[in-house]
Amino acid sequence: MSVLERFSFNHATAKFWDQREAVEACARTGSGIGLWREPVQEMGVEASAKLVQDAGVQVTSLCRAGFFTDPTPAAIDDNRRAIDEAAALGAPSLVLVSGPIPEGGTIDSAREGVKEALAVLAPYALERGVTLAIEPLHPMFASDRCVVTTLNEALDLAAPFTAEAVGVVVDTYHIWWDPEVWRGIARAATEGRIASFQLADWITPLPAGVLTGRGQLGDGCIDLKRYQETVDATGFGGPIEVELFNDALWARPGAEVFAETRAAFANALA
Amino acid sequence: MSVLERFSFNHATAKFWDQREAVEACARTGSGIGLWREPVQEMGVEASAKLVQDAGVQVTSLCRAGFFTDPTPAAIDDNRRAIDEAAALGAPSLVLVSGPIPEGGTIDSAREGVKEALAVLAPYALERGVTLAIEPLHPMFASDRCVVTTLNEALDLAAPFTAEAVGVVVDTYHIWWDPEVWRGIARAATEGRIASFQLADWITPLPAGVLTGRGQLGDGCIDLKRYQETVDATGFGGPIEVELFNDALWARPGAEVFAETRAAFANALA
Repeated sequence: MSVLERFSFNHATAKFWDQREAVEACARTGSGIGLWREPVQEMGVEASAKLVQDAGVQVTSLCRAGFFTDPTPAAIDDNRRAIDEAAALGAPSLVLVSGPIPEGGTIDSAREGVKEALAVLAPYALERGVTLAIEPLHPMFASDRCVVTTLNEALDLAAPFTAEAVGVVVDTYHIWWDPEVWRGIARAATEGRIASFQLADWITPLPAGVLTGRGQLGDGCIDLKRYQETVDATGFGGPIEVELFNDALWARPGAEVFAETRAAFANALA
Repeated sequence: MSVLERFSFNHATAKFWDQREAVEACARTGSGIGLWREPVQEMGVEASAKLVQDAGVQVTSLCRAGFFTDPTPAAIDDNRRAIDEAAALGAPSLVLVSGPIPEGGTIDSAREGVKEALAVLAPYALERGVTLAIEPLHPMFASDRCVVTTLNEALDLAAPFTAEAVGVVVDTYHIWWDPEVWRGIARAATEGRIASFQLADWITPLPAGVLTGRGQLGDGCIDLKRYQETVDATGFGGPIEVELFNDALWARPGAEVFAETRAAFANALA
């Protein structure tokens, strides 16, 4: 089996590309797709589900819910809706970005909020056959976007729940710097928690807009092949998503970005 | 004892302020000072040593050596010179920033370079009565500036050596996001490794120039008082340096920045 058969294109890599065209490109190439809630809602959840089903495209994840460091009823409701959407789309996992430090709080209090939210949401997700995939983000986002910063922290948060209910995202861009990363991946595998595996590269110097400066595969310093081999050695054989938030890519035609990203994927994992 | 008696002004907080004026301001207020190699060399090491001695100002650290992920003879020699300078200045510790991923290397190979360099330098430092203070930097600097990213990693690197030879820097700006930080501080204390304690705040949104966007104490989201209490609870009663790399501060008169920083320090730790 060629590694290309495991390629999944996260829609955010060509953020402004029409969802239908993205799904069609995936269908033509036997690729999976990582969908995003905004374009799904724009087309309608049922219509989106029919689109991928008719095209025979595997939805590898739905992005993105979470933002529940302040677990208000509204935040919980929105996450329940996201779980329903993932179930309707046949997405095995829903990616969760935990959210910022709430006004007046600390990073420690925010982390308590995440625990509370997961306790409420995990049974709901389990009933609907969706795995909540906790994504640690790079620590440069710890104050304004995601207080969960390491794979081990995500695994500790997942620990109270079954692996069917709560897993983690292994995204190279966010965790490559961590001296514990290899042990973290081994632990995630042992606990059966790898709910999503995503690739992006880290380029130097860091672009000024840190949110949208993820590198095309091969353009940066991350040993992506070693990540694939390490994750695969744990017994993981699932899809590998490429998710690049990158202003320069977003400015280009989606079809071109898709083809380039698929080629970079094949090259990086050759 | 007022916490202000433990205030030490790192010269980089007013980077373009004349070293003599900075030392005089510290003398007038009973503050310590963290010196930097470039201004020390500009004045001359002996003249700088005489300056602080005559002024009765405690040098709390010398910044900065390291950059030995590729431990060439030139890099090692430069670190030996830095150790000599620290000894001449009466600085108890020399701050080490490990350096970038060398061309063609990986973060793992770079970390091996750091181990090699420390093994060569630790005995030299011990002979001269200078503690090498390994500073973990925030992971956003992992590719281009410092491959050591957590307190635990720094402690692992220090472990083969006596605490007199090799310790760590506890700098709130770099480690505040780490879910292991409180355990890391406890471990550092147990092992007697806190060679320098530095404060800076984390502001949101992250400024575009990430190197020079450290926040004035109290302007950000770090619970600085909790850091002081936690570090002090371990038995540490040493100086507390404030080191802010901040373009806006650097553009202002040094005396003004000094007074403001000292007041912010008193306020944050009140």
